[in-house]
Amino acid sequence: MTQQDPQYYIQGVLKKNRRLLSQTITLIESSLEEHKAISKKVIEGLIPYTGGSIRLGITGVPGAGKSTFIENLGTMLVKKGHKVAILAIDPSSNRAGGSILGDKTRMGKLVSHEDTFIRPSPSGLSLGGVGSKTRESMLVVEAAGYDVVIIETVGVGQSETSVATMVDFYLALMIAGAGDELQGIKKGVLEVADAIAINKADGENMDQVARAKHSLEMAMQMIMTPSFAWRPPVLSCSSVIKNGSLEVWNIVLAHQKEMKRTGQFEQKRREQSIEWMWALVKEGLKSRFNENESISGLIPFLSKKVSEDLISPSAAAGEMLALL
Amino acid sequence: MTQQDPQYYIQGVLKKNRRLLSQTITLIESSLEEHKAISKKVIEGLIPYTGGSIRLGITGVPGAGKSTFIENLGTMLVKKGHKVAILAIDPSSNRAGGSILGDKTRMGKLVSHEDTFIRPSPSGLSLGGVGSKTRESMLVVEAAGYDVVIIETVGVGQSETSVATMVDFYLALMIAGAGDELQGIKKGVLEVADAIAINKADGENMDQVARAKHSLEMAMQMIMTPSFAWRPPVLSCSSVIKNGSLEVWNIVLAHQKEMKRTGQFEQKRREQSIEWMWALVKEGLKSRFNENESISGLIPFLSKKVSEDLISPSAAAGEMLALL
Repeated sequence: MTQQDPQYYIQGVLKKNRRLLSQTITLIESSLEEHKAISKKVIEGLIPYTGGSIRLGITGVPGAGKSTFIENLGTMLVKKGHKVAILAIDPSSNRAGGSILGDKTRMGKLVSHEDTFIRPSPSGLSLGGVGSKTRESMLVVEAAGYDVVIIETVGVGQSETSVATMVDFYLALMIAGAGDELQGIKKGVLEVADAIAINKADGENMDQVARAKHSLEMAMQMIMTPSFAWRPPVLSCSSVIKNGSLEVWNIVLAHQKEMKRTGQFEQKRREQSIEWMWALVKEGLKSRFNENESISGLIPFLSKKVSEDLISPSAAAGEMLALL
Repeated sequence: MTQQDPQYYIQGVLKKNRRLLSQTITLIESSLEEHKAISKKVIEGLIPYTGGSIRLGITGVPGAGKSTFIENLGTMLVKKGHKVAILAIDPSSNRAGGSILGDKTRMGKLVSHEDTFIRPSPSGLSLGGVGSKTRESMLVVEAAGYDVVIIETVGVGQSETSVATMVDFYLALMIAGAGDELQGIKKGVLEVADAIAINKADGENMDQVARAKHSLEMAMQMIMTPSFAWRPPVLSCSSVIKNGSLEVWNIVLAHQKEMKRTGQFEQKRREQSIEWMWALVKEGLKSRFNENESISGLIPFLSKKVSEDLISPSAAAGEMLALL
């Protein structure tokens, strides 16, 4: 089999060959048209073998201690017999052409373990493309037998919402500030999180953490939709005193059990797939629009006229659509 | 001039003729192709006369006392010499073909006043169309000299976010529950609101209101982005003891003053127009897609296959796009 043959990748992934797993993800991430064509067939071939993992999204501001938290969680899971894949969405990889999260010194203990697979994932340049590669990488690692997939995001821009639509459970990692407030709680995070963990709950931080936990519990209580069965808990954890990994994991399992009991688990997965299909349709329509040169030439001109109230937004939209 | 002549409407609106103002909005709301063509020209003709009002969005769950609150606010504003237009987005008008909010007994004091104009506004059937008629109606009443436009929404589905992108100031009206919680606080409302007013702050409710106010202030404090200059205040008000209209209005004015001082007012309006242009482009692309019969025939089939994991979302999206 050659590298142009989809079966080369499909068989490699299904045989749990680590090198071919890496190659397959590289293929998926490629923006070359010939790679895209093969990649599409690879995904179709792997689809029947996907869906078997617990999909866990973890977000948190830089400095919240995500890497160490994930390393501890991953180490614990491997000890319990799980195979853990970690996909880290890194917005900076768009600029550098590489990824700072690719730094192999991060998560040192896990990187070398045979039951873990760690991979930075480009967040995608286009707005609608945030996480599109991540979702397909997730399917690939599932097909390779990883039964826990952790998607790590620093939650810049749209990646947070995007990740929420591809995982079963979304954890927000926070740290307590000097007062009641939490550092860097981001817009919308309270609404997509299935649990919140306040990290660095150790030593002199304990009082602050307790206050932040209380405030946050009240906030979460207020924004809850009463019809929804799951009430996102607020936990605390610490890497220093090695505390919290097990608690978080137990919450993930309890959530999954509850979702499966009520039929919401399968429903959520189905909805996520349909949602994803429509996101890709939207993305496709948008790129056709953007690739039309007579339109793209007009955009700056029309935008200026609209922002100066010289023409209405609907007239400008009409002019662009007429050229398609 | 005939009713096919855009000038018939343009001149009528600019002469502040109430009957023609109503007719113009009816024209704008019409889905007949010939009306759309005239309507487009009318909007273009009126655009230079728009932008002069304070645009105020008010949301709140049914039972929060929105109508009475708006009636009191409107009455006060008219007494201060303002001309007030109230556009009420009513999701139920889609089903009934009419609008329950059209009920002329609502806002009894204001309806008959010559300096007020009250109009229900259909929320639009299509997802992207939420509020599209409302935005254009707002421009029309501005051109007719109304210097305060209040857009009322019950905040079902997308209308809330949509209204936030067309107003200068967004007020969320809440009521306190039996405990600390607020009744019916909706997803995302904390994040788009420029102020929150807890209504029915009178009599035996006062304790509950104070508790809810405190919790809400803490929640707002937590989700604030530190870089943003405006910190949304939490107010309380009552229609029984006729309290709060002036406080709310003063906040609206203070907000506007601050936004203008920092240049954010004009910037926000410009961004809203551009955003609106793109929303219309998206809507246009979507309707072309939906009107393609070979695609729409495939949608149920492909959706089913995707939700059963028989094909990938991206293969399904590709099949649809290939037919366009």
